[in-house]
Amino acid sequence: MTRSVLFISDHTCITAETIGRSLLSQFPALVFERSRLPYTDSEEKLRHACQRIAELGRRDRQPPLVFSTLADPHLRRLLKTSDGIVFDLFDSFLRRLEVVLGQPAAPAVGRAHGLVDTARGRDRIEALKFALETDDGLRHERYQGADLILVGVSRSGKTPTCLYLAMHYRLFAANYPLTEDDLMGATLPPLLTHCQARLFGLTMHPERLHQFREERRPGSRYASLDQCRWEISAAERLFEAAGIPYLDTSNRSVEEVATRILQKTGLKPERW
Amino acid sequence: MTRSVLFISDHTCITAETIGRSLLSQFPALVFERSRLPYTDSEEKLRHACQRIAELGRRDRQPPLVFSTLADPHLRRLLKTSDGIVFDLFDSFLRRLEVVLGQPAAPAVGRAHGLVDTARGRDRIEALKFALETDDGLRHERYQGADLILVGVSRSGKTPTCLYLAMHYRLFAANYPLTEDDLMGATLPPLLTHCQARLFGLTMHPERLHQFREERRPGSRYASLDQCRWEISAAERLFEAAGIPYLDTSNRSVEEVATRILQKTGLKPERW
Repeated sequence: MTRSVLFISDHTCITAETIGRSLLSQFPALVFERSRLPYTDSEEKLRHACQRIAELGRRDRQPPLVFSTLADPHLRRLLKTSDGIVFDLFDSFLRRLEVVLGQPAAPAVGRAHGLVDTARGRDRIEALKFALETDDGLRHERYQGADLILVGVSRSGKTPTCLYLAMHYRLFAANYPLTEDDLMGATLPPLLTHCQARLFGLTMHPERLHQFREERRPGSRYASLDQCRWEISAAERLFEAAGIPYLDTSNRSVEEVATRILQKTGLKPERW
Repeated sequence: MTRSVLFISDHTCITAETIGRSLLSQFPALVFERSRLPYTDSEEKLRHACQRIAELGRRDRQPPLVFSTLADPHLRRLLKTSDGIVFDLFDSFLRRLEVVLGQPAAPAVGRAHGLVDTARGRDRIEALKFALETDDGLRHERYQGADLILVGVSRSGKTPTCLYLAMHYRLFAANYPLTEDDLMGATLPPLLTHCQARLFGLTMHPERLHQFREERRPGSRYASLDQCRWEISAAERLFEAAGIPYLDTSNRSVEEVATRILQKTGLKPERW
């Protein structure tokens, strides 16, 4: 049986949904039907939300679960009168935080989710621009402006990782694809030796790389398992010889690859 | 005085950090020094974490705040013996969820954060690839494969929004920049009329657009306030005439723009 779950917030719902998904993932046997109610920032909108909760409750013949990050105490009180079973982040933690910090919370709608501030917003866009402009070995004359340069063979996951690092950590991350010529050498290509301290290698199980490449160019030498095995082992040899830290991206999400890179490099950007 | 805050998790720390930042943003007068302890998934690593908490507590002469999303009950118990003040997502909500759902949680390290599953992982990478390949009006012959096509004048925020929608919602989002020629016409360019139902407009305060363009080409006609005013009003006229929903991106974060687009279009992708 499917259980209805609503995420409600005065802003984007991203926090409420992150919390809800994290908790519900601990019940893998159950099926949930999720919906979002973002920008619920007035009494009128909250009453609409309560109607929606009541409708779902009647339909399902059981109360929906509601994950809330409403900052306004008045709206939180109203939500508690709904037909849903409410899990409220602020109710659960805020009182205790006020005691610990020795001051009352200053509820501000939207601030909970890190409303844009102009300067930082620009930084992120600059970081994305940098990632796009230096993608796939382009414009390597700009590597001196990079926080990080990801190095790896074609299809090893460099581009999504650079974009994620830009989007969420405002890092200037470039990426350089190791070519066959590079892999046949015993040392790094000269354009990388200038910025060796900022290099980070990505690698992958050859079988997985083979799958990815088959999707791009089925049956090609480029995609063959032999070629993938050779490239991966040559790339890893190069990383080892040059002392470049590296990570296997097989079966890892972009979030996980990004977090592990931060951990291994010691870069400490603020999460967006 | 700065207060130390630690985020601890058996996986990426993204959930713990989202929760912590959301709560701490309600105390805008205070300054926090944040650190992350991701991948704390063994007793040994947890003991290291407790040492770090103790060190910060001694240095600060006050206990650090610790936001935790550890799934393993044993590690949660150990963390509670640390010198920090622990705010634990699972302790706070899981018992009640178990009662409501009528079954025990099945703690699984990492699952809390949506560990990659191969098929979905690929979808996201495909979505990012689509966004990159159709960025800035490129390859409009592929618009039939798009979930959404963002339309707007140069620098109105299309690219970051497309990348965010791809990264977080696996949406295939293309973007098309309205040129002066397009803006001088009274109707949409023909290549857009084929996919009108999937168009979404981005607009911006002319003053803000002017600032952004000045950074790119200072003193140019392209960046002049008059030109920005004209382009924005022509674009909005076009959106209105064609019945295209649109949104002002000024002072909005990429997250917020993305969420509002989903709300306005009724697209209901699962958050990644």
